[in-house]
Amino acid sequence: MKPMTDLHGTEYQPPFVGPTTFLRTPYARTAAELAGLSPDVAIIGAPVDMGTVNRPGARLAPRAIRQAGYFGTPHTDVYHMGLGVYPTRVLNIVDFGDANCPPHSLEMAHQAIWTKVTQALQAGAVPVVLGGDHSITQPSATAVAQHLGFGRVGIVHFDAHPDTGALSYGEVLLGHGTPMRRLIESGAVPGRNFVQVGLRGYWPPGDIFEWMKAQQMRWHPMAEIETRGFDAVLEEAISEAKDGPDYIYLSVDIDVLDPAYAPGTGTPEPGGITSAELLRAVRRIASTVKLVAMDVVEVSPPFDGPGAITSEAAHRVVLEAISALAWSKEQAQNV
Amino acid sequence: MKPMTDLHGTEYQPPFVGPTTFLRTPYARTAAELAGLSPDVAIIGAPVDMGTVNRPGARLAPRAIRQAGYFGTPHTDVYHMGLGVYPTRVLNIVDFGDANCPPHSLEMAHQAIWTKVTQALQAGAVPVVLGGDHSITQPSATAVAQHLGFGRVGIVHFDAHPDTGALSYGEVLLGHGTPMRRLIESGAVPGRNFVQVGLRGYWPPGDIFEWMKAQQMRWHPMAEIETRGFDAVLEEAISEAKDGPDYIYLSVDIDVLDPAYAPGTGTPEPGGITSAELLRAVRRIASTVKLVAMDVVEVSPPFDGPGAITSEAAHRVVLEAISALAWSKEQAQNV
Amino acid sequence: MKPMTDLHGTEYQPPFVGPTTFLRTPYARTAAELAGLSPDVAIIGAPVDMGTVNRPGARLAPRAIRQAGYFGTPHTDVYHMGLGVYPTRVLNIVDFGDANCPPHSLEMAHQAIWTKVTQALQAGAVPVVLGGDHSITQPSATAVAQHLGFGRVGIVHFDAHPDTGALSYGEVLLGHGTPMRRLIESGAVPGRNFVQVGLRGYWPPGDIFEWMKAQQMRWHPMAEIETRGFDAVLEEAISEAKDGPDYIYLSVDIDVLDPAYAPGTGTPEPGGITSAELLRAVRRIASTVKLVAMDVVEVSPPFDGPGAITSEAAHRVVLEAISALAWSKEQAQNV
Amino acid sequence: MKPMTDLHGTEYQPPFVGPTTFLRTPYARTAAELAGLSPDVAIIGAPVDMGTVNRPGARLAPRAIRQAGYFGTPHTDVYHMGLGVYPTRVLNIVDFGDANCPPHSLEMAHQAIWTKVTQALQAGAVPVVLGGDHSITQPSATAVAQHLGFGRVGIVHFDAHPDTGALSYGEVLLGHGTPMRRLIESGAVPGRNFVQVGLRGYWPPGDIFEWMKAQQMRWHPMAEIETRGFDAVLEEAISEAKDGPDYIYLSVDIDVLDPAYAPGTGTPEPGGITSAELLRAVRRIASTVKLVAMDVVEVSPPFDGPGAITSEAAHRVVLEAISALAWSKEQAQNV
Amino acid sequence: MKPMTDLHGTEYQPPFVGPTTFLRTPYARTAAELAGLSPDVAIIGAPVDMGTVNRPGARLAPRAIRQAGYFGTPHTDVYHMGLGVYPTRVLNIVDFGDANCPPHSLEMAHQAIWTKVTQALQAGAVPVVLGGDHSITQPSATAVAQHLGFGRVGIVHFDAHPDTGALSYGEVLLGHGTPMRRLIESGAVPGRNFVQVGLRGYWPPGDIFEWMKAQQMRWHPMAEIETRGFDAVLEEAISEAKDGPDYIYLSVDIDVLDPAYAPGTGTPEPGGITSAELLRAVRRIASTVKLVAMDVVEVSPPFDGPGAITSEAAHRVVLEAISALAWSKEQAQNV
Amino acid sequence: MKPMTDLHGTEYQPPFVGPTTFLRTPYARTAAELAGLSPDVAIIGAPVDMGTVNRPGARLAPRAIRQAGYFGTPHTDVYHMGLGVYPTRVLNIVDFGDANCPPHSLEMAHQAIWTKVTQALQAGAVPVVLGGDHSITQPSATAVAQHLGFGRVGIVHFDAHPDTGALSYGEVLLGHGTPMRRLIESGAVPGRNFVQVGLRGYWPPGDIFEWMKAQQMRWHPMAEIETRGFDAVLEEAISEAKDGPDYIYLSVDIDVLDPAYAPGTGTPEPGGITSAELLRAVRRIASTVKLVAMDVVEVSPPFDGPGAITSEAAHRVVLEAISALAWSKEQAQNV
Repeated sequence: MKPMTDLHGTEYQPPFVGPTTFLRTPYARTAAELAGLSPDVAIIGAPVDMGTVNRPGARLAPRAIRQAGYFGTPHTDVYHMGLGVYPTRVLNIVDFGDANCPPHSLEMAHQAIWTKVTQALQAGAVPVVLGGDHSITQPSATAVAQHLGFGRVGIVHFDAHPDTGALSYGEVLLGHGTPMRRLIESGAVPGRNFVQVGLRGYWPPGDIFEWMKAQQMRWHPMAEIETRGFDAVLEEAISEAKDGPDYIYLSVDIDVLDPAYAPGTGTPEPGGITSAELLRAVRRIASTVKLVAMDVVEVSPPFDGPGAITSEAAHRVVLEAISALAWSKEQAQNV
Repeated sequence: MKPMTDLHGTEYQPPFVGPTTFLRTPYARTAAELAGLSPDVAIIGAPVDMGTVNRPGARLAPRAIRQAGYFGTPHTDVYHMGLGVYPTRVLNIVDFGDANCPPHSLEMAHQAIWTKVTQALQAGAVPVVLGGDHSITQPSATAVAQHLGFGRVGIVHFDAHPDTGALSYGEVLLGHGTPMRRLIESGAVPGRNFVQVGLRGYWPPGDIFEWMKAQQMRWHPMAEIETRGFDAVLEEAISEAKDGPDYIYLSVDIDVLDPAYAPGTGTPEPGGITSAELLRAVRRIASTVKLVAMDVVEVSPPFDGPGAITSEAAHRVVLEAISALAWSKEQAQNV
Repeated sequence: MKPMTDLHGTEYQPPFVGPTTFLRTPYARTAAELAGLSPDVAIIGAPVDMGTVNRPGARLAPRAIRQAGYFGTPHTDVYHMGLGVYPTRVLNIVDFGDANCPPHSLEMAHQAIWTKVTQALQAGAVPVVLGGDHSITQPSATAVAQHLGFGRVGIVHFDAHPDTGALSYGEVLLGHGTPMRRLIESGAVPGRNFVQVGLRGYWPPGDIFEWMKAQQMRWHPMAEIETRGFDAVLEEAISEAKDGPDYIYLSVDIDVLDPAYAPGTGTPEPGGITSAELLRAVRRIASTVKLVAMDVVEVSPPFDGPGAITSEAAHRVVLEAISALAWSKEQAQNV
Repeated sequence: MKPMTDLHGTEYQPPFVGPTTFLRTPYARTAAELAGLSPDVAIIGAPVDMGTVNRPGARLAPRAIRQAGYFGTPHTDVYHMGLGVYPTRVLNIVDFGDANCPPHSLEMAHQAIWTKVTQALQAGAVPVVLGGDHSITQPSATAVAQHLGFGRVGIVHFDAHPDTGALSYGEVLLGHGTPMRRLIESGAVPGRNFVQVGLRGYWPPGDIFEWMKAQQMRWHPMAEIETRGFDAVLEEAISEAKDGPDYIYLSVDIDVLDPAYAPGTGTPEPGGITSAELLRAVRRIASTVKLVAMDVVEVSPPFDGPGAITSEAAHRVVLEAISALAWSKEQAQNV
Repeated sequence: MKPMTDLHGTEYQPPFVGPTTFLRTPYARTAAELAGLSPDVAIIGAPVDMGTVNRPGARLAPRAIRQAGYFGTPHTDVYHMGLGVYPTRVLNIVDFGDANCPPHSLEMAHQAIWTKVTQALQAGAVPVVLGGDHSITQPSATAVAQHLGFGRVGIVHFDAHPDTGALSYGEVLLGHGTPMRRLIESGAVPGRNFVQVGLRGYWPPGDIFEWMKAQQMRWHPMAEIETRGFDAVLEEAISEAKDGPDYIYLSVDIDVLDPAYAPGTGTPEPGGITSAELLRAVRRIASTVKLVAMDVVEVSPPFDGPGAITSEAAHRVVLEAISALAWSKEQAQNV
Repeated sequence: MKPMTDLHGTEYQPPFVGPTTFLRTPYARTAAELAGLSPDVAIIGAPVDMGTVNRPGARLAPRAIRQAGYFGTPHTDVYHMGLGVYPTRVLNIVDFGDANCPPHSLEMAHQAIWTKVTQALQAGAVPVVLGGDHSITQPSATAVAQHLGFGRVGIVHFDAHPDTGALSYGEVLLGHGTPMRRLIESGAVPGRNFVQVGLRGYWPPGDIFEWMKAQQMRWHPMAEIETRGFDAVLEEAISEAKDGPDYIYLSVDIDVLDPAYAPGTGTPEPGGITSAELLRAVRRIASTVKLVAMDVVEVSPPFDGPGAITSEAAHRVVLEAISALAWSKEQAQNV
């Protein structure tokens, strides 16, 4: 029996065989290795859950998200049927491993994430950060803003909660309910360049919304989506995102999905959007704006059940964004 | 280090710290304690599953629903962003504990529930009953009808099944498939004051539907919702609910949700509504009619998976109704 | 105490009592027994998962699907409230047990399935095959085409993936990614008589879609459904299904549902349809076309969670089709 | 390809294929069918959990226990390697189905169990009852005592709890904490013919132990087993069991096992025996005393985890007893 | 129907009814309330998991442990059959609630625990701390040593790991692998007053064992237990514990149990002791030494499975210790 | 903040950070890379479950076993406290990845395993194969026997079942119940060089035991272990293992453990040994005989529960063997 190969001699492997980088892309251990690979996209794990107020477990998410999907080798066969594009042929995707996040110090974890994201940017890649709780957006988006210039980056943010709390438990500045405030207060991202989609539920209190209004933040709660329809709201959110910043950072808290679609998360909030809506939104945004970085956060594998559907959804959020980036590049080349 | 407090000196606590009353509201052990607290709303657990024909476990639901949510202290920070209201500031909510339901006797369990609901009504509160299986609506709604007058209370009932069976297993009058019939036969609630939303599936047989028609009951199956749209049906259901009765009892069988949104239930029925639809419906009803009592039933934690999304959905059904009540009270005060 | 019976003396039994044939219909051990029962519908288990590329477990599905539902005895009380029909009164449904599928040989398993389906057809029944992975459609639909004539049968196929791969892992002709291609290549089913609904995701590569186009296959991806609406696409799919073939074989891969509705499957693909949509589609198809056989595949109980909602969905897909068949028969008799 | 058969032409089937009677033995629907099969052993399901005080779910156990094991066909290949016996060749084992236990009435459920056990005894079989909660021992052992004579039957009882409570929740005579008392009070089984093994924990209160002493009951708590060793205690228990009664009824509450071995039960009690100890004890008892009936109770599948090890243990308890019965019969025949 | 009561008029309640303090003992909100109740034992939750290096979730343990057991009301019926004692009649046990542990700051969490333990000691109670990860032993045992005098308290410590690491991840002094070292370095507990039982596995490195030896710590690894037998080792450990200190603090890391008995923990280590051995050891120690405080740590409910056996085991560890304390008090009174 | 490092500058990483080779050892992609690393031990995954007769899922085991343990970096800190050895300092361990096992062809999977094991042997390493179902021992042990000489290798085999079936389902030569027979029939391993420990249960039939006896195989069932004690049996098994062959292949079917210790397996068999016994046995064997290869098989992660204790046990079986090899090497060097 001869080995199983495709026409080019690449050996076929089913998804349960072999190592577990994201989409089986090459693995870069160091910043030098990454730079040597001339990456278009760098996958970075941010295994942190110290910022979680409710159910922990997000530290286990980067590994679970990488193992989602049914993709074996050759990974160059991955094909987005809607866009008609092979993302791993068009883009050079590299798995840059995990930031080294100790479980006892949010500060050290954030420092490690900041460093990895910065290294990815310096290597010319779009960093794609797999959280981790939402506190990781603070070092990640800060690194991006420092690289491209404070005030030049906007954030499109899918979430059930705005994450703009002043303090976490009264005394602590860091936590998964505060990163967006920190980014605005530091000047990294101007308030009016923030667009939030999917808010609902019972947090934060009204004074935080007042603060958000004062920052000229823009948000689209579920009640608006239910009334106007998801696609109308999405169109508006995209035009708001383009109104101001040169570049867009996309932050997807998986709890923007209804808990039916994402049970494995720290703060499930019933009444959310569907996975079809989220994937469509990510695809449209990534093919419309200048996407310079993204993260997917708040997947908590211990609460996900045997079907692991939350990790699968997070995996596809990334893949959908990457596919749209690949499509955009192909479009640009074809002009 | 000083304790973590808000501006008013209230200590912050994350959701996993401290006791587990509903929303961390005060706990009243006895009817006298309850009355002493001048409650607007009284939360009552009804841990019964002897009425369940298929999968048991609803006896464990009151505890699980109370522990859902991500709400720590101070509970007065809970804020409904859509309605712009702080429910626990506007309403005095008290957790009145559980009815003492022995596992071997549905009669004794029902008696205990009837007593607790009556005590809550006498204390001036809107009773909110956390089931248990659907059989608990019989003692609960009977107590309400006795308090306000037979014939003066209507029921809006979200469910996959009408629960109007004649007998449970041929000989037994009580069970979770029969409570609505008992309420009509006793005269507590007139048939024409019943409005059912979400029916689907394969039960009961056609003769039961004939009986329902003879009682002038009104119902809106999923097939109608799919054709006309949820909101149109909801508007009609609300106007039917207001056509006749002075007061409304809201009964939500969590299996009205599709099993994707509520896997932890005794008789899952594919093809149901979404949690966004249910929460919207509850909010509209509670802010439109004179809501005098409600229950949420048929959550079965052992079948809910680690994400516990069914308990979360049930928790929000209650919170959405309470928020709407608070909003109505504020509206009335502002006039 | 006398036994619990209905008016006709049939003993009532709750769903957790007694044996576990599908809907508690009679069980036929042999082809002779089946023929002796003059069946309209024959339920056949196909417990195979050797064809699965990703997560196994579909071998356990026929048993799990049979045990889904809340149906006790008498099974003649099962009533479809939307169609107003008692399927088990109108149709003679028989549970024909499982094909004897050894775990180590896909060939022998397929042979056993082919034999059972052929026996059911020879007994005059509509075979309803409970998979098993999707590879079982190959022997099942081949048997149907052989019975009714190559080229005379079309396939309506709900799935996230077209399952038209050329080879499975380079060398193997059989697998759950290839059955549709085999059916076309053998001439059993002409390419233009294939209609696929629900495709999405990242498989297969573009050259397979080229081949599909060359076969005149027709397909409706999720992107189209999102744009045009499910019902418009469904109507078109039905008219395409009727354009050509005399008979229709319905194949439902449960992963056409979004993973929220079907977490227990081998290759979950976020962004799918809802169970309400699938049940509606099955009902319309089965009451519109000449349905001669069907299968429901890719349920994997070990990945389904304690709520077992994927098995419940698969069970209702079958029951909805059978109800529509019963309704059609009643309509025909009433003319 | 020809069918897979053994030398005698019996078709091989793996465990996941085909119907699910216990060990794939023949199924008798009625008492007449049972009698016609001249059974040595009759398997009877008693799907009851209304008697459960803590975690429900035992109603689902008979089905789960039947599906445990890895035994396909031909079932005559089942061979006990330690005893060197083929239990299903030596004994005629018949699956007599379930007693029809409605979920709302413990009285009716007990009546149905009493009837099935009596029918099995009348057919000459050793009834093997698969609970259900422990309340089922009351009708089951009563039927045996009525058949063989009040006072002539002793009970060997493995359990963490003596189940000799006076009343269940003050008012109710039936429940899973009281059956042993009822059997003694009715005179069915004399107190001194009771031998209990494995008691531990914190229930019942001391006055119940006083009552037990007054009845001359004999018991062996875990503390004694830890001090003297399991085998010494077992020998003494067996000689006590033979001291008095003509016949022995064996009742195994699966919670006699440590929760590590039986997590899926209603009232887990840490500090119990191992499955190796329990199987050894059952084997020795069944091959030493005149075993006339047995039950295995308190398996609760919803609490058992995906490995289903509690159902597996319960299945082997039955199989080990049956094997010992077969061995005894062979020994007697060889004399 | 009259309410269900015992002879003294106390209402019976099954375990799933009512609030969830430990053993349903009274709840003290503040130090003043606690002192007012003249407690013998104070239960304190320490919901912390920031110190966990591997799998998180211990923050959810205090709640889960309180809900374990099958104990309803009246709680004074709880009876230890081996010791013949009613612990809640002999001792005044009070549930002192949880230390307020924010998820982002181990320092603040430790401070809150230190305060609660100190308050319990000042009220004259034996503090029983329900962890949380093992880092909580540092503030808890420090508070005890400060109260009774540095150097006067010894620790008997059941664990798979010695938790004597120098630094956690190189830079951080706090973590669940370091508390025992901190206690020795601060002088709170002399090294020779430490006795460890159950060590095994692959951590820490040899230099840490050198340090332990230099501190005159004493430990008994599993290899020794396997060779000499558990009871011989236990006797020696007890005599070592009494050799030196005036008082004993008992610290039980639930991972001293084999993972079969305690799957729900952060760092499972195969090859451990059984729950029967652990309960026996706790009983003997608590009735032999002067036990002044104890903790049970490292239960992680998200990893515990539906049977929740790890929480059950932890609950009984506490109850067994309390029962032994009650027995000792009774013995002393009878002299 | 500077990076977290040890004294040698190696960066510390917690277990949830970074890639997932076994013990974080280096990864060799190809045979050349492996050879270039001069390995003492080569870890090889064999993700196969087509040979499984009962519950599938073993294809997912190699990945799960690699992710077990709490070991971060530097991996050279792993220290066996009982043997006083640092296995990864003494031995050069390399993770050689997975054999490429297609899911549909046991033949191709076996061929791939045979090749990897042969390559490891040629590189001078002890192959450690992580199954997969037990059928993988056939290619693995065959490769070893071919490398060292037919007849020169013996097998010590821990298992609940002897796996010496003649045919799997009548027709198929390969399967997880037959590999030991194939190895003897081919002459690779003489029957008298086989020692089996832990057999129990109800398979295979007696004629297979006759065949085993005719081959001079030696086996030690649980009944013997219960009578004589584990350690006495282990000593005899070791001396039998050394009686004849020059080299030993160790095959550990995880189901030799009682299901309490290994619920995540395909054919659980109650009444097995403990993890402490298995680890002790592996340690003694690996430090006594000339161990040339080993495998650990039949872990099935989907049936393992959230605690994943079966994967943890399998991981430690490997680590215990490797530690004993390291100890032996150190002993030899110290002479």
